[in-house]
Amino acid sequence: MNGKVYLVGAGPGDPELLTVKALRLLAQADVVLHDELVSQEVLVCARPGARIQSVGKRCGPKTIRQEEIASLMVAYARQGHLVIRLKGGDPLVFGRAGEEMEALRQANIQFEVVPGITSALSAAAEAQIPLTDRRLASTLVFVSNHQCCEKNVADWTHLVSRTLTIAVYMPGSDYRGLARRMIAAGLNSQTPCVVISHASQERQKVHRTDLAGLMDVPVHAAPALVIIGEVAGGESRSAAGDAYFEPTDATAEALQE
Amino acid sequence: MNGKVYLVGAGPGDPELLTVKALRLLAQADVVLHDELVSQEVLVCARPGARIQSVGKRCGPKTIRQEEIASLMVAYARQGHLVIRLKGGDPLVFGRAGEEMEALRQANIQFEVVPGITSALSAAAEAQIPLTDRRLASTLVFVSNHQCCEKNVADWTHLVSRTLTIAVYMPGSDYRGLARRMIAAGLNSQTPCVVISHASQERQKVHRTDLAGLMDVPVHAAPALVIIGEVAGGESRSAAGDAYFEPTDATAEALQE
Repeated sequence: MNGKVYLVGAGPGDPELLTVKALRLLAQADVVLHDELVSQEVLVCARPGARIQSVGKRCGPKTIRQEEIASLMVAYARQGHLVIRLKGGDPLVFGRAGEEMEALRQANIQFEVVPGITSALSAAAEAQIPLTDRRLASTLVFVSNHQCCEKNVADWTHLVSRTLTIAVYMPGSDYRGLARRMIAAGLNSQTPCVVISHASQERQKVHRTDLAGLMDVPVHAAPALVIIGEVAGGESRSAAGDAYFEPTDATAEALQE
Repeated sequence: MNGKVYLVGAGPGDPELLTVKALRLLAQADVVLHDELVSQEVLVCARPGARIQSVGKRCGPKTIRQEEIASLMVAYARQGHLVIRLKGGDPLVFGRAGEEMEALRQANIQFEVVPGITSALSAAAEAQIPLTDRRLASTLVFVSNHQCCEKNVADWTHLVSRTLTIAVYMPGSDYRGLARRMIAAGLNSQTPCVVISHASQERQKVHRTDLAGLMDVPVHAAPALVIIGEVAGGESRSAAGDAYFEPTDATAEALQE
């Protein structure tokens, strides 16, 4: 009898940011096929005795081809195993889940997708900035700045506008080029931005700046994310505010209930 | 001594899609101030004895003003309580977290943000469609179609393009108007889309169609989400594929290890 494959989001790295379901499945798994950026702290949540195998791909010389990952999932499932395909963040955002689900359908392998905390959410949580704000940004865009073989995978700069928040996944090492493209696309060089690396992990770094300043920010280690937009200036804005906070009458009533 | 406020994402409704951290905090909370759309199944995870209070706002007559929510958080924290501000999905996506964090900073209340599974991720997981796919969509946009007092909160139709995936939060009841705006913005009427309501919950509904068909889809109850883009046609595309899946030689080797 065939097993089943779970495409599971590992979240940003802190095992407490796994979903309850992901943690339960890890404790039952026979096989865990994981991306390179999945943290050790998450991998140790797998059942003792489970086969844990990295199927990470790097830019440049690929260590494993996409078809081989699909092939492994199918083969392990056909042996009757409970297989977890564990992806950093959420499985459906900037992964190859589309291709993997197709391969599983074609092979008639039962599968399920278990969502995870994608990087933009954990990075914003750590930097304590909203991703949308009815006063500043009504729309949120997830883009990838992944450059393979010096080639930009996608051009999305036509989307750029002042009322957008832009979460740049895989920002790479050319922050200067990124900032220049944003400014060329029409953003003010004072537009706030935040670089966050290893969000939720002990070695987390949060660097607050603006597009002009981004040009000189030292490159942060992967996994990193850049959030660009007025929302990213939120902390300094409210730190400058001096309104003193007093409970309203309605609150006083609610508290007395 | 002041307590602390946690802005926590409740995810889509299934308590197994809470993060481990959210579940732990709920088990410790003194006060839970929750949005209207947070599921009962999640609320029962709160510590027995915790004060659980709905601070939901509806379109139209507001039952509670934003300042009162902030005021309640501050007041409870000043009483030394561990306060959870529990929001459907992720706290930083289409909520009022920006304003709430500002109020907490101004009141000098310590706070932390705990991310949650936002609707687009759980809806896509249930519908088994990727949100990005290197062959079809390189960019993902979260927009809100929330209409308050018949007025569209934001116009984002200029963003629309064939290589985008658009996740429409709070799609409202005028699917016909939504489809027409998408088509007027340049999308083909055969562009695939999926309406998902109550993702991850027992009463979940998934309706697959295209923009032409969306015009006649019966309105789904909130919380609902519409995903528009070529990625949404994935399941039918691969169901039509007839390639038979065979493990590669490399897989066979890996399995023998």
